[in-house]
Order: sequence, then structure tokens, then C-alpha cells
Amino acid sequence: MEIIPGALLQQINSPADLKKFDKDKLIQVCQELRQYIVDVVSVHGGHFGASLGVVELSVALHYVFNTPYDQLVWDVGHQAYGHKILTGRRDNFPTNRKYKGLSGFPKRTESEYDTFGVGHSSTSISAALGMAMASHYKGEHDRQHVAVIGDGAMTAGLAFEAMNHAGIEKSNVLIILNDNCMSIDPNVGALKEYLTDITTSHTYNEFRDNVWKALGKLPIGKNFTRDMASKLEASLKGMVNKSSNLFEALQIRYFGPVDGHNVEKLVDVLSDLKNIAGPKILHIKTVKGKGYDLAEKDQTKWHAPGLFDKVTGEIFKKKFDIPQPPKYQDVFGHTIIELAEKNPLILGITPAMPSGCSLKYMMEKMPDRAFDVGICEQHAVTLSAGMATQGMRVFCNIYSSFMQRAYDMVIHDVAIQKLPVVFCLDRAGLVGEDGPTHHGCYDIAYMRCIPNMIVCAPMNEAELRNMMYTAQLPSLQMPISIRYPRGEGVMPEWQTPFEEIQIGKGRKLKDGKDIAILSFGHPGNFAASAIRDVRADGIQPAHYDMRFAKPLDEEMLHEVFSNFKKVITIEDGTVVGGFGSAVLEFMNAQGYHADVRVLGIPDALIEHGTPKQLYEEIGLDPYSIAQLLRSMAGVKAKPVTA
Amino acid sequence: MEIIPGALLQQINSPADLKKFDKDKLIQVCQELRQYIVDVVSVHGGHFGASLGVVELSVALHYVFNTPYDQLVWDVGHQAYGHKILTGRRDNFPTNRKYKGLSGFPKRTESEYDTFGVGHSSTSISAALGMAMASHYKGEHDRQHVAVIGDGAMTAGLAFEAMNHAGIEKSNVLIILNDNCMSIDPNVGALKEYLTDITTSHTYNEFRDNVWKALGKLPIGKNFTRDMASKLEASLKGMVNKSSNLFEALQIRYFGPVDGHNVEKLVDVLSDLKNIAGPKILHIKTVKGKGYDLAEKDQTKWHAPGLFDKVTGEIFKKKFDIPQPPKYQDVFGHTIIELAEKNPLILGITPAMPSGCSLKYMMEKMPDRAFDVGICEQHAVTLSAGMATQGMRVFCNIYSSFMQRAYDMVIHDVAIQKLPVVFCLDRAGLVGEDGPTHHGCYDIAYMRCIPNMIVCAPMNEAELRNMMYTAQLPSLQMPISIRYPRGEGVMPEWQTPFEEIQIGKGRKLKDGKDIAILSFGHPGNFAASAIRDVRADGIQPAHYDMRFAKPLDEEMLHEVFSNFKKVITIEDGTVVGGFGSAVLEFMNAQGYHADVRVLGIPDALIEHGTPKQLYEEIGLDPYSIAQLLRSMAGVKAKPVTA
Repeated sequence: MEIIPGALLQQINSPADLKKFDKDKLIQVCQELRQYIVDVVSVHGGHFGASLGVVELSVALHYVFNTPYDQLVWDVGHQAYGHKILTGRRDNFPTNRKYKGLSGFPKRTESEYDTFGVGHSSTSISAALGMAMASHYKGEHDRQHVAVIGDGAMTAGLAFEAMNHAGIEKSNVLIILNDNCMSIDPNVGALKEYLTDITTSHTYNEFRDNVWKALGKLPIGKNFTRDMASKLEASLKGMVNKSSNLFEALQIRYFGPVDGHNVEKLVDVLSDLKNIAGPKILHIKTVKGKGYDLAEKDQTKWHAPGLFDKVTGEIFKKKFDIPQPPKYQDVFGHTIIELAEKNPLILGITPAMPSGCSLKYMMEKMPDRAFDVGICEQHAVTLSAGMATQGMRVFCNIYSSFMQRAYDMVIHDVAIQKLPVVFCLDRAGLVGEDGPTHHGCYDIAYMRCIPNMIVCAPMNEAELRNMMYTAQLPSLQMPISIRYPRGEGVMPEWQTPFEEIQIGKGRKLKDGKDIAILSFGHPGNFAASAIRDVRADGIQPAHYDMRFAKPLDEEMLHEVFSNFKKVITIEDGTVVGGFGSAVLEFMNAQGYHADVRVLGIPDALIEHGTPKQLYEEIGLDPYSIAQLLRSMAGVKAKPVTA
Repeated sequence: MEIIPGALLQQINSPADLKKFDKDKLIQVCQELRQYIVDVVSVHGGHFGASLGVVELSVALHYVFNTPYDQLVWDVGHQAYGHKILTGRRDNFPTNRKYKGLSGFPKRTESEYDTFGVGHSSTSISAALGMAMASHYKGEHDRQHVAVIGDGAMTAGLAFEAMNHAGIEKSNVLIILNDNCMSIDPNVGALKEYLTDITTSHTYNEFRDNVWKALGKLPIGKNFTRDMASKLEASLKGMVNKSSNLFEALQIRYFGPVDGHNVEKLVDVLSDLKNIAGPKILHIKTVKGKGYDLAEKDQTKWHAPGLFDKVTGEIFKKKFDIPQPPKYQDVFGHTIIELAEKNPLILGITPAMPSGCSLKYMMEKMPDRAFDVGICEQHAVTLSAGMATQGMRVFCNIYSSFMQRAYDMVIHDVAIQKLPVVFCLDRAGLVGEDGPTHHGCYDIAYMRCIPNMIVCAPMNEAELRNMMYTAQLPSLQMPISIRYPRGEGVMPEWQTPFEEIQIGKGRKLKDGKDIAILSFGHPGNFAASAIRDVRADGIQPAHYDMRFAKPLDEEMLHEVFSNFKKVITIEDGTVVGGFGSAVLEFMNAQGYHADVRVLGIPDALIEHGTPKQLYEEIGLDPYSIAQLLRSMAGVKAKPVTA
């Protein structure tokens, strides 16, 4: 079914086309843009609420600024659908987030209007400042650099670092604070309350005049100079509109708050700001999901709802006749509660992903023991370390690719001190539609090289439960990383009793001959499927679920290398320095010689698509593994069956 | 020569002893503590200015608080000498930073008074908050948690993240902002100017009363409630003392500024604050190097001056009859200027280490092209990425262990976008006296697993120059990491002409037989020395300086594995996933079989000591390499010669 954009939107193939409209036509442009996003996302999927919230801002920015000469950086970027549609990608937009289609985030290789690739939060001010300082150095003083950042992203330390620097530079940076009180989940932290405070303090305006009249009676004389009076004025302005203090303390001129859904007002304000040189911040208030009632009312649910009936608001869910395996996320979310009910030392920490990682269940049930600390991975880890010094057993749940943010804290605050923090690395492996910024490719390699760190991965739900159980036992006095992918496991009956796993001990799943498969984590299931597939060809590989990339099960590896000359290692992480490399290091150190095929994520950027498409692309699907087994066994490869 | 502590200090073996003194004796305790630090550091070396600046604070904290039950976290920790001396380590203090001696930083395994191990900056608030939340959860509501953090450390995003969280928790956290306007180098950024502003605004106090009198005339009525009057008061307080705004915006009660060298006043203030529950900040003003004139005047020079004559202030420097090799740092510092003079696109970035990494020369000579961005590794990298999008060639110089802070930015903002940022990783390998928090052990492993990243290391000064030259050529459109150690290279005549190095090409230094040594970076010199040593034993190893851990010189490796069955790899990085593992991955992928000995930093924490001591400990010194060569060649090992 073809989706037809509205009459005005049809004419917009670039910002130049947008600029041809009179200002009073922009309201209709916004309506059509919003409708087009609803039409496409309901049928093709994608992020939803964030882009609806910045429809007016997207239109106003491209109307006022001379993009792409003026440079626009979208923070995180899943709110940039309007921007994409306005910058020549309208007709391609239905391919959004699909394999070989448009990226769900701004991406430099996709369009000259995408000045900076994003995905992770809070990079926009640093990036825009870098661009602005380069422009300043090159003498391009007319050039504008705009960072659009949400109030959630503003809580990350990187944004603060960038503001602290921007304040002392003379470069043209306009920070637009898109304040909707939400990340994916509701925002937390003092900054959020501060921003809320601003918008409820409008009535102070009424009193400003009275105050000034009173101040007129102050003694202007010897010590009370005009300069001081002007400082007093600034301070009173701070009182009237509290926000000015925080940002102006960092020497960034503050403007706002402004209604972010009034496109004409936004055009006026942005036009004015264009003429003010130096660093400045415009605070706009928006509603996530604006214009789609249900999305306004349940913003977390409608952050990325999947496909839905745009008229009724029914979100389509697959229905099954038989019980399905749960998501690893939910296994984590329910299991930590089970464990915490028995062990009072357990606490839970998530940086802004309570829904995504399912810590929300514990936050609801045990609000004094589970905490969302905002988009603050660094703080999440060092806070966990501080708690661990007091004997607490902290489960710190962070997505694999976001844990990159806290790498130093993992090394410096946890591993060097050998504190028994439990890192649950969600979204390990290829995450699918979110693409290269979100794939969890590197954690096996970056965790394995840290002394004192245990690195493990469950092959299924029961294993995840047992690893979590083991991680909180008093006997374990080391940090541990437990990684698992996004989405479903393999066990519909997942609530198995807890069993301790000996650290560094794998499981032999299958005896075999000629070829041994050593798998790490969930892809062990791909291997098991491949093994079933090749049985008809008379191939009988052994299968070992190694469980630990560190410490390795050396006893098991001695068995493997003593008995097999052909070995396959399988992991859903990079093949550079990962689990396979660990096996090679062991083999070399022990003087074994075997033909080892290291399967994993190749040393290249893997783009977006469904996980299935991507694992097929890189040859880590059951079919490819089976073909490799046939080839190693000298059996003719089976033709592809569609 | 024994160093005798003063009469009072002699009696202090724990904070309990300190508490026995009347308050009016504390001035003398401070004098003696300061003198003892001067006496010991002048003879034994170590950090200097920072600890002198917090003598009074150290005494006051242990006098007022019930340590170690009350928990004290020192940020960075090189200012904690006074704390160490007061907490039972006075007589051991001359072993500070020496092999097997006291650590230069607080360390949990060293003392129960060291509640959190530090070294890197800005972790203290998160750690103290974690402790405080744990105490709160356990019902220990009387327990105090104190973070002492400098104004330099306050600029890092982690500190902001922690404050944003502390503001909404009810836990007992006291943040002491030790404001001395310095990191190692003078502080930068808007926050610094903001804090300076506070302390120059004392005169406002005089006017507060007048203002209040005037405000008394305001209409209190319908809209002007008491609540608003109280908010107005808060705002006026902000005017009087501007600092309250920034911190109180984050809901942390602000007190100060207070003279940090008035120990009696500090005791009073801290005693008062002990009785105020919840998060609070005390702003104290101190002078780095306080009480030692020269150190007060040149704070960067006296941050860690080495040995000196405490009477004359003469800093002892080794004198040599013949020209010595320069430090790698200075080769970087002068070479970037040489390159920038020819290539106008070159910019330089350092996060708060202009002296340490020698970017200071460029900052002096080309102030519009070289920038110190403060203790902000994350921002430094994303800023560099933003600049690179504009065609700039940015040399972003960050210590290897500090680069851990910016790992996500390296992946997400630079590598995924394939931006040609040049990372100069200073302090790679074992740094010596600073110990495990500062050793640059992991960067080969953590950089090598990132797609698009070139990983190289120079064996000497000329190689560093050529790598820097190559990195800025227009033909190179990839990110590159150039790692080199702290300290001297090997070439007194280091100003060699620039030569382009082909990416991924090594150098054969020596033909040989039976054994091949593949070295990466500076330890190639240890190998060369070992090779000279074993010549007398008739052993003639070949030596290849591989230069690149990624991409590997595959042609060279084919030559090696075709001709040698015994191979040694040498690197000053972890043996887990590093250069040696890269060679093993190649060998396995290409079906070669050889006995490969992977030499490097073992998978364990290496403590502090001189680099020479530490490299001997781990067997990465020339003597150990020579012994390994003899053993592999079947020649009897030469006895150790002292």
C-alpha cells in the first residue's frame, strides 16, 4: 500500500523547497509531516514518539538555517525522522531501519545533511562545538552550528563537559534543549527537577517589576556601582527564570522556555538567535508523541511500539498457539527479584534503561533496592563500586555498546579493586535494526583483557539464571560480566531451579568425532541446530558450551585439543581478541596444533537489518555453520534452500 | 638519614591520637605535618603541591569525623599524603611510591582508612554516594560519607553525573570542593571562571543588608506569598554568593567559600555540617603548594618536582657528559609544531595534560590551534571528531589509561564514522611509580578490536616522527592510534627528516636463524639489546619491528612463519588480546604452526616501582629476553649478574 504524503510535503525535496513556503504555511507542513510519520511508522515500524515531538522544530530549523552549510547535529538521532523526510529522503523513508534501507539514525554516508553520525546519547554539543571551532579557525564566522539535545541526554557527563568548554569558546554554537521530561523512560535526577521548576515559575514574571521598583531605592554610591547593579539584575533574572543560572553559570546565554509546538514562534526565535554570536542555549518545551493521543499518554510504550493500527491504536503482536521462550531481558528482570528476595545484599542499577533491560519489575517491587540513575553509565559503574565496598551485591545492567562509556570505571573502580560487581551486559551481539552504533560486538574483547574480570555468557534461560545465582554467592569475590542478546531465548519453561556454576567450567553438550565446536553464549543454539542438520550427512561434531571466555575451562580444552584436529569456535562478538582468540592463546601456550575456525562478528562494521538477516550476512546462522561443517568434513555442501 | 617528625606528629599513630589534642594544638599539628611532607618528599620524591594544599583539611577531617566508620574518599588521591601519615602510615611514608612500598594513592588493600582506590580523577562523588546509599539502605543513618574533590576534577562529566544523582538522594554525602584553580596545569573551562567569580564577589556581602532592607518594602499580598519571598531570598543569596546557584540547582546545599588553611575554622564548619543530613557541598579555597614558597609560585613545576634541596629549592637533575635521548613527550610536542607549520589543517587537543604530554609548546606558539579542554577525555575525543568532519587533522593526545574514559567516543564518534583523528596515546606500557591505575596496559587490546582503527607504536624517536607525519597526510582517511611510553627514547639525534611509512608495513632490523623476534613499539629496544647479548652464545635471532598491531604486515609474517618455527612476540601491553594474539590469529588463519612465545604484560595487576624494576619483575627486560632466547636455543642460561 503506497503512502501518499500531503499536498505541501509532496513538494518538499530539500530544505530549499521548504523555504519557498510563506511562514503561515508551515503549520500545514507540520501537520502533513506528522501524519506522514504516523502513516509510515505504523506500517513499517521504527521509533515513534521522539520524532513526533520535534516536528515543528525540524521544520523551523530547516526553514531558518542554511543547511547543510549551517550544521545541524541531532543528539541520539531517533528523533530525526522529520529531518530525514525534509532533506530528500521522503520517498525512501518506508525503508527506514530495514536491511539495506535508510538508517534509523543520522549517518554521514547517507546524506550531506547528516553532519554527524549518532545513536548513543549526549555527543551533539561536543560535535557541534568541534565543527564550530573549525569554522572559527577557518574564518567562516557566518556559519551556524546547532545541537539538538533532549533533557535526558543532558544528564550525561559528556554534555556537561562540552558545555563547560563551549562557555569559554567564542564559536557559534546554538544548543537547543528539547525538554520533554523523558528519555525512553521518564527522566530522573536533580537536573530534571530543576528544569521542571523553570517551567512552573512563570508567575515570577509578574513580580519582577515590583522588585525592580524596590531596588530603585537602593543606595547607588561608593560601593554600589553600576556594574554591581547589572550583576544584581542578572541574578534577579535568575530568580525570575531559574534556568538562566545553571547554564549562564557556564557562560552560555540562556533563552526560553519556548513552546516547541508553535512553529511560527520557533521560526521567529531561531531567526533572532541566528544573529547572536557565540554559545547560547534555547530551551524548548515539547511533548513526546505530540499529535498522537495514545503516544502522548504512554510515552514509554510508544517510544518504539512496533507496527500498529494508526486508527485504533492497536499494537500488533504476534500470536502463538504454543508457549514461547521469554526474552532474556525478562528472565533477568524476574530472576533478580527472586534472588533479591532471598539475599538482602542485592541491589540493582540501570542507567536509563529500566524498561529495556526489565529492571523496572524490581524498581516497582523493591523501590529502595533498584535504581535508575539516568543516562550515566560512568556513574552507574562507580556508584556500584562504592556500594560493593559496603558488601552489597550490585547487579549493574548496561547494554554492551553503552558499557563502552564506562570502560575506565570497570577497570579503575571495579577490576583493579577486585570488587564483586555483577555486570549484566544486555544487547550483546548484533541487535538488529539499530545498527552499528548499537551492536554489542566488542565487550568480549574489551572485558577479557582486564585482570580479575570473569567473562561469561549463557546459552539459554536456565544458564542465565544460574550465572546470576552464582554471581551473588558470597564465595564469589570478583567482578563478573554476564552477556546476553536482545530478545527471546529458547526455553518456554524457563523457571528452572537455581544451580551454582563452577567459575571457569564449561558443559559438554555432545560427544562427537573429527570436529569439535566450542561455543560461547547464545550462538551455541545456532551450532546445535547446525549439528542436527548435518547428522544426515554422517557428520557428528562434538559440542562444548564453554560458558566462560575467561577463565577458560582448561581441563575441557585439553580434552578438546587432545582429541580433535579440527575445531570451530563460535561467538556473537568480534573475532579480533574475543573468545576465539582466547582459545588460540591457550592452544599456542600449551603447544597444541589444530585447524581452528574462528566464527564470530568480522572485523568490519555490520549495518542494520533484522538479526536474522545480519547473522546470515556474516555466516553465523545455522545454515552457514552447517555448510562449514560439511566443508571441513569433506562432504559436498548442501545447496541453499530458500 | 632518618627524618624525625615533630613532637605532636610523633604521637599520632591513628586518628584517635589526633582527637586527643585540644583544638588549639591543631595549628602546630598542621605545621609539623606539612614539614614532614616537605622533609620526606624532598628526599624520597613524589607528588608535592597537592598534599601541601590540604594539610589543614586532612587534619580537620580526621579530627571531626569518626574515620574509618565515617568514610572518606579522596579524589585522584595524590593529595592524600597527610591522610596516610595521620592514619598509621607515618613511619612507612618514606617508602611512598617505591617498589613494594606505600602506594602514592589511597588503596583499599593498604589501609581500612582508604575506603576507595583512586588514581584517575572525578570518581569520588559517585563512590561516596554508593557508600552512602548502602549505609542508608542498611539503616546506618549516623554514618557520614565525604568526598574531597578538586575544582579540576569537578570538570569531568562523571562528577556532574554523580551530583545530578546525589541531589535527589537523601543520603549523607558531603562533597568538599577543594578549589585551588589548578589541575596539574592551570584549570580551564567555564566552571573555573565561575568559581573564580565566587571568590571575588565577597564584597557583595556588604550590600546584602541594604538589598534586604529595600525588599522589605515589597508588597506582600495576594500573589507575593511567603514561599515566593523565600525563593527570592534564595536567589539573592545566589547573587551574593553566585556559587549557590550552580550546585543548589542540582539540589545540593552549598556552603562556603571557606579558607581551607584555617584549620580551626574548618573544624567548626565540618562539625556543623555533620549535623545536617542529606547531600551538601562545602567549598574551600586552598593554595596548591601552601607553605612552601616556590611551590606556591610555580604550581605546575612543583606538582611532582622529583628530589630537591628543601632549603634552597634546587631541583636535582641528573647531569650527563654526552647528549641524551629526548623524552617521547617532547618529540611529540616539537614534532606537531613542525608538522602544523606546514599543514594548516592540523589542530592539537589535550584533556588537562599540556605539560605532561608536551602539547604546551604548541599552545604557546599557536594558541588558536592547540587546546587544553580540561579533565574531559570524552569531550576531547568527540570534539576532535567534530573537527575532523570539517577536514581538520586533529592530534588528540591522551594517556593510554585515561583513554579508557573515552572508549565509547573512539568507537562511536570516530571509528564508526571512519574519521581520520590521530590518537597519540602517551604513557603506554608500565608507567612506574603511579602504579596499576596509570599503567597503559590495555590499549593495544581495546583499540585492536575496533573496526577501521589503525594501531601502531614507534620503536624510537624517528619512528614516532614518521608515524605522526604519515598520520596527517591527506591520503590517510582512517583513525590511527600511535602509542608510546613515558620517558626517554633512544636517539640523542632525534630530529630526523620525515619519511612516510606505509600503513601496515614493518621493518626487518636483522636477519637471523632459528628464532624470530617480532616486536611492537619501544620494547623492540629491549629485544635488540638481548640479541646483542646472546651473540656471544652463537645465537642469532632475526628481529622484525612490526610497527603495526593492526593492520599486520602479512607479507612479513608469511616470511617469518615460512622460515621460523620459533617465534617470540614482544609488546608492552597485556598478553590477552594484544599484539601477540594478533600474530596468533594470523598464524592460525593461515595454517602455520610455530612455537610462539608471547611476551608482554601478564594478565595481572602490576604494582608500582620504577619501570626498570617492574619490567624485570614481569620478565620483559633485556636480560630476561636473552635468557628466553638461550632457553629456546638450548643454550645453558647465563647466571644473573647483579
